[in-house]
Amino acid sequence: MEITKLEPKIRRGLVVVLTGNGKGKTTSSMGMVLRAVGHGMKVCVIQFMKGDLYSGEWDGVKLLGSQVDFTSTGKGFCGIQGNPYPHSEHRKNAQDAIELVHRKINSGSFDLLILDEINNALQLKLVDLEQVLGILDKRPEQLHLVLTGRDAHPEVIDRADTVSEVNEIKHAYRKDIEPQPGIDY
Amino acid sequence: MEITKLEPKIRRGLVVVLTGNGKGKTTSSMGMVLRAVGHGMKVCVIQFMKGDLYSGEWDGVKLLGSQVDFTSTGKGFCGIQGNPYPHSEHRKNAQDAIELVHRKINSGSFDLLILDEINNALQLKLVDLEQVLGILDKRPEQLHLVLTGRDAHPEVIDRADTVSEVNEIKHAYRKDIEPQPGIDY
Repeated sequence: MEITKLEPKIRRGLVVVLTGNGKGKTTSSMGMVLRAVGHGMKVCVIQFMKGDLYSGEWDGVKLLGSQVDFTSTGKGFCGIQGNPYPHSEHRKNAQDAIELVHRKINSGSFDLLILDEINNALQLKLVDLEQVLGILDKRPEQLHLVLTGRDAHPEVIDRADTVSEVNEIKHAYRKDIEPQPGIDY
Repeated sequence: MEITKLEPKIRRGLVVVLTGNGKGKTTSSMGMVLRAVGHGMKVCVIQFMKGDLYSGEWDGVKLLGSQVDFTSTGKGFCGIQGNPYPHSEHRKNAQDAIELVHRKINSGSFDLLILDEINNALQLKLVDLEQVLGILDKRPEQLHLVLTGRDAHPEVIDRADTVSEVNEIKHAYRKDIEPQPGIDY
């Protein structure tokens, strides 16, 4: 059996949005990291509101070497129970992350840019709609952009090429099963 | 800011099902590979009906080294236009893959086992419900099991801990954009 290796006639950067309330948005973006490096592509990941909680992908991407530039920013989910930081501090972190996004785009070094949880950051007013649309509109034509997080803004969805909504049918935590390493974080 | 590293009081293997018609099921399972290796876990991936079409993760996982055991089986999607192989041949391939699953489980070497597209294989009668339920029921308590593919069987969903349905809101191919490496394969 012959193995087919696709090669598009026209290469173009896609905008992919992963939204919804189910498990598999950040996880899916990490799968695209693994897929892209397999093609020899350079990937930049910037996570919003996630700098305070270790997740396995922090070390997983290190094994992929210099093809992946990974930054986890922020101080956890703004507004959830137990998070001690005021909105202003979360916004400051997210605004710094937006600056970082522009620096990474301007570097011209990447084929795929993942903005993890940016949909939530927008919903929580840590970043502004104009800032997110600005990133979408100014990105180089060949740069793939992936935006994850619940409550994706309709104007972001409108500009995207591929949008998936990940819906929770059931989740282990509802049976009081604690988050498990490798699966949940 | 301190970084929290969760550690569950009780570790237990989860059954995760990723189903639905949207992009992000296989991709999400590949994200769990990256996450799990970050925790030092050993991962086995067995893909059904996918041995004929190169995808970036084939090479991506190689960068993760010996923590990942990856096998892509089969001769493409059974029954789709252009696939020249009869059902009997697809079934033979899938049955061989089921045997491989049992060998991998019995080896006791893995913390996470991903059965990619097994839901479709079941729907297409390449494997039997009893075979899939047998895997779920006999697996070691600590082994995480991830089953992907459209049309997950209700009895599989019933036995799972976490189930996400990935729904297509839009997809680039509907705008006649060809599949792009790093994103779609």
